[in-house]
Amino acid sequence: MDGKRASESFSVMKELVLPNDTNGFGNLMGGRLMYWMDIAASMAAMKHCNAPCMTASVDNLSFKNPIKLGNIVSIEARVTRAFNTSMEIHLKVIGEDTLHQYQYESNEAYFTFVALDPNRKPRPVPALIPETPEEIALYDGALRRRQLRLILAGKLKPDDANELKALFVPNK
Amino acid sequence: MDGKRASESFSVMKELVLPNDTNGFGNLMGGRLMYWMDIAASMAAMKHCNAPCMTASVDNLSFKNPIKLGNIVSIEARVTRAFNTSMEIHLKVIGEDTLHQYQYESNEAYFTFVALDPNRKPRPVPALIPETPEEIALYDGALRRRQLRLILAGKLKPDDANELKALFVPNK
Amino acid sequence: MDGKRASESFSVMKELVLPNDTNGFGNLMGGRLMYWMDIAASMAAMKHCNAPCMTASVDNLSFKNPIKLGNIVSIEARVTRAFNTSMEIHLKVIGEDTLHQYQYESNEAYFTFVALDPNRKPRPVPALIPETPEEIALYDGALRRRQLRLILAGKLKPDDANELKALFVPNK
Amino acid sequence: MDGKRASESFSVMKELVLPNDTNGFGNLMGGRLMYWMDIAASMAAMKHCNAPCMTASVDNLSFKNPIKLGNIVSIEARVTRAFNTSMEIHLKVIGEDTLHQYQYESNEAYFTFVALDPNRKPRPVPALIPETPEEIALYDGALRRRQLRLILAGKLKPDDANELKALFVPNK
Amino acid sequence: MDGKRASESFSVMKELVLPNDTNGFGNLMGGRLMYWMDIAASMAAMKHCNAPCMTASVDNLSFKNPIKLGNIVSIEARVTRAFNTSMEIHLKVIGEDTLHQYQYESNEAYFTFVALDPNRKPRPVPALIPETPEEIALYDGALRRRQLRLILAGKLKPDDANELKALFVPNK
Amino acid sequence: MDGKRASESFSVMKELVLPNDTNGFGNLMGGRLMYWMDIAASMAAMKHCNAPCMTASVDNLSFKNPIKLGNIVSIEARVTRAFNTSMEIHLKVIGEDTLHQYQYESNEAYFTFVALDPNRKPRPVPALIPETPEEIALYDGALRRRQLRLILAGKLKPDDANELKALFVPNK
Repeated sequence: MDGKRASESFSVMKELVLPNDTNGFGNLMGGRLMYWMDIAASMAAMKHCNAPCMTASVDNLSFKNPIKLGNIVSIEARVTRAFNTSMEIHLKVIGEDTLHQYQYESNEAYFTFVALDPNRKPRPVPALIPETPEEIALYDGALRRRQLRLILAGKLKPDDANELKALFVPNK
Repeated sequence: MDGKRASESFSVMKELVLPNDTNGFGNLMGGRLMYWMDIAASMAAMKHCNAPCMTASVDNLSFKNPIKLGNIVSIEARVTRAFNTSMEIHLKVIGEDTLHQYQYESNEAYFTFVALDPNRKPRPVPALIPETPEEIALYDGALRRRQLRLILAGKLKPDDANELKALFVPNK
Repeated sequence: MDGKRASESFSVMKELVLPNDTNGFGNLMGGRLMYWMDIAASMAAMKHCNAPCMTASVDNLSFKNPIKLGNIVSIEARVTRAFNTSMEIHLKVIGEDTLHQYQYESNEAYFTFVALDPNRKPRPVPALIPETPEEIALYDGALRRRQLRLILAGKLKPDDANELKALFVPNK
Repeated sequence: MDGKRASESFSVMKELVLPNDTNGFGNLMGGRLMYWMDIAASMAAMKHCNAPCMTASVDNLSFKNPIKLGNIVSIEARVTRAFNTSMEIHLKVIGEDTLHQYQYESNEAYFTFVALDPNRKPRPVPALIPETPEEIALYDGALRRRQLRLILAGKLKPDDANELKALFVPNK
Repeated sequence: MDGKRASESFSVMKELVLPNDTNGFGNLMGGRLMYWMDIAASMAAMKHCNAPCMTASVDNLSFKNPIKLGNIVSIEARVTRAFNTSMEIHLKVIGEDTLHQYQYESNEAYFTFVALDPNRKPRPVPALIPETPEEIALYDGALRRRQLRLILAGKLKPDDANELKALFVPNK
Repeated sequence: MDGKRASESFSVMKELVLPNDTNGFGNLMGGRLMYWMDIAASMAAMKHCNAPCMTASVDNLSFKNPIKLGNIVSIEARVTRAFNTSMEIHLKVIGEDTLHQYQYESNEAYFTFVALDPNRKPRPVPALIPETPEEIALYDGALRRRQLRLILAGKLKPDDANELKALFVPNK
């Protein structure tokens, strides 16, 4: 199975914020945004592995700026790295107030998807080939994020997470 | 009011075909696709004029290939030309079967949007500046399509539609 | 296969405009209306041919009066003519402001549907028998609209569209 | 305030049963049908009184035949009688299997709506004028159904419900 | 088949009232509430009989207090009694205005569901065992409500409905 | 401002998985579940602080068992601890296959919500009073999770996160 370039799975999804997507303040509800982010991420994942995919995990996600009713939500999704049967996808969410010609970052997140074979079992995915400096930085960070995920899921002992450990015990 | 480049309003919207979007054959319903096309077109229109916009008309639209359940719908929208208070938007709809790595053209259409001021009256929009050969071809054709629209709406006499007339009476 | 009277497939569909159907001005979005029109048209088409149907094309459609939040949308759909495996459906959209006892025409359109057999191949449909003067006028116009559709789709040379040509070169 | 004829508020609403409207057997869910019936009834009520209306009660409603995925739901709504500030609406729900040219009754129900003034207080509604034998029968039965409603709501003593009592103690 | 305790099928469903659920006054539409009540009732029914269920009937339902946009709808559903192949479910709907720390009863209703076997035929359900005084009161009343349902459906002669008759002719 | 007991804000939300909520394998899509979790969490948050709330962040979330079409999703939400103007909410998602009388844990997550005053500025929230051993354990862990959130958001230096640091450098 040949590797695939990061740019091949890059996807942009745009949505218009309608009344039913908002809370009492006229801002996009966090849950509706996560719904769209999951679909955007699954599009990028399916493009990378050409197989059905299932959401495995979502990393810590923090909402910076609320997106307003009538604004456009633009979600950029790109596969950052592949791990045997799973892929990490980076998402960048931008709000666009077209009337005031104003764009603002809403949030950034990492989703992990697993590729499935027709029997719903995990199947291998192609390696990801990063090319631009941004893609390489995302690719390198993916290992550290994966260690954190495994620790938080209780599948890795903190002591074995060398990349992550360096954050806390830098001079060792 | 300065003109605006065609590339500034280019928008891509992607949607995943879910069960409720399909007819009895598991194909995307035409009406659901038109709903998405209208939103994609309004995004491009609002980006061009930075004002609220309203759909004024939709040109003849023909569905070539049905899009299947689970496939991705990719809608590319670009403003082709501005006419005083309205804009023509070109839409290209592509189906993506990610599992079979297969892309197919679904349809192509032209929507017209009107820009509105806060009193809901039409307001002037910036001129469109086409740059690439494709943008220039779309810009040139926009006049002929506008004549056809006006004739079909009973607002222009066929005899005054010089560009369009040439289609039927070429050697005159 | 016997012909079928136009009145047999006449359908009226009514919808209430809810918040999520509207744009920033509290008016029904064009795309939502097209979604409902497509369903109304498919009901009339299925009634005529008693087979599953698929949207083939939508003619030039122009939005005259916006329909407001809380108003009723009334869509009248009737098959105007059958052509071998396809049917043309005429749609008339009326807005009803029940509080002010006021009805207004919103738009009018022609959709074309294709009947399908269980293998998803086009199948013959019954001829349409027009009876009232209005049905006869719609039936007669259907041929001219079909020629325009075929020309716009690049499937008919303008020179062979006799009915349509007469519009542009009347005295010939 | 002049009375209004029953035929003036007659409304027909049609819906296509889509996948998300169905239960595990591919039949329309009862709750989705009640949602549509409520909208159909409110259209008839608003047409009768030209004021905003609110659902006050729904009478005993029993589902006879399930409506299948892909079938058309046709809901006929008519005001049967007006009582000071409220109206009773009769609903008849018919399933249409267009492929098999088969129509079947799904259920029948009575909804009561209250008309509201701009301060959300009940306001008087025009009397209903029944004309056809069917309209007169519905008009006459409305009084008996209202007594049952009031008894069930604890607002009327069974002994004072003369019309209804006759059902149980016929020879008195 | 052993009986099942009432508490085993008790279910609470909560929903947030969003813009598209409301009418022009910003109150939850009756039809949307009935849609949710039907789902809440079906959850309780399925828990009791561990089989697919279908709505058979809804008793007289009256809306007391409107529920406002942004409030929480809390629907408590419990099976009150089982009758061969059907179950009666009691629903209690409470509105919660969390900002004003205020709870209000919206309505109360009885739904009847039928259990189905894989061939979509009615199948026996376990008996219900009421335990608390409230459950016993609901269990006892179920017989009287069933008689009323059967009379209203024309399946029982009023004279044979002994429990119900006592309401109208108490001293006999 | 008095503290509030954990049990006061405990909420259970139940949803039925419908066709449009599922992916190609008939399993609930991750994004739809997150949409529901966000609503369930906001209900608990609003109950605790009696003010409008906004999603601030979602901690690492991993999907263990897929939930199937037709199954019930049960989401338990409880506030674990309050921090000045924000609250941490613990969510537990359980799938219920009522036909097979089988319950399975789907996932567990922590959401953080901020309370807002009418000018959309953060406002103080009551302290949370944990009572049961489970509530106390959640309350204690909340501090460590908050440190991790602040580090991941770049707002806290790893060296200052004493609670978290102990995980990586236990014997210090």
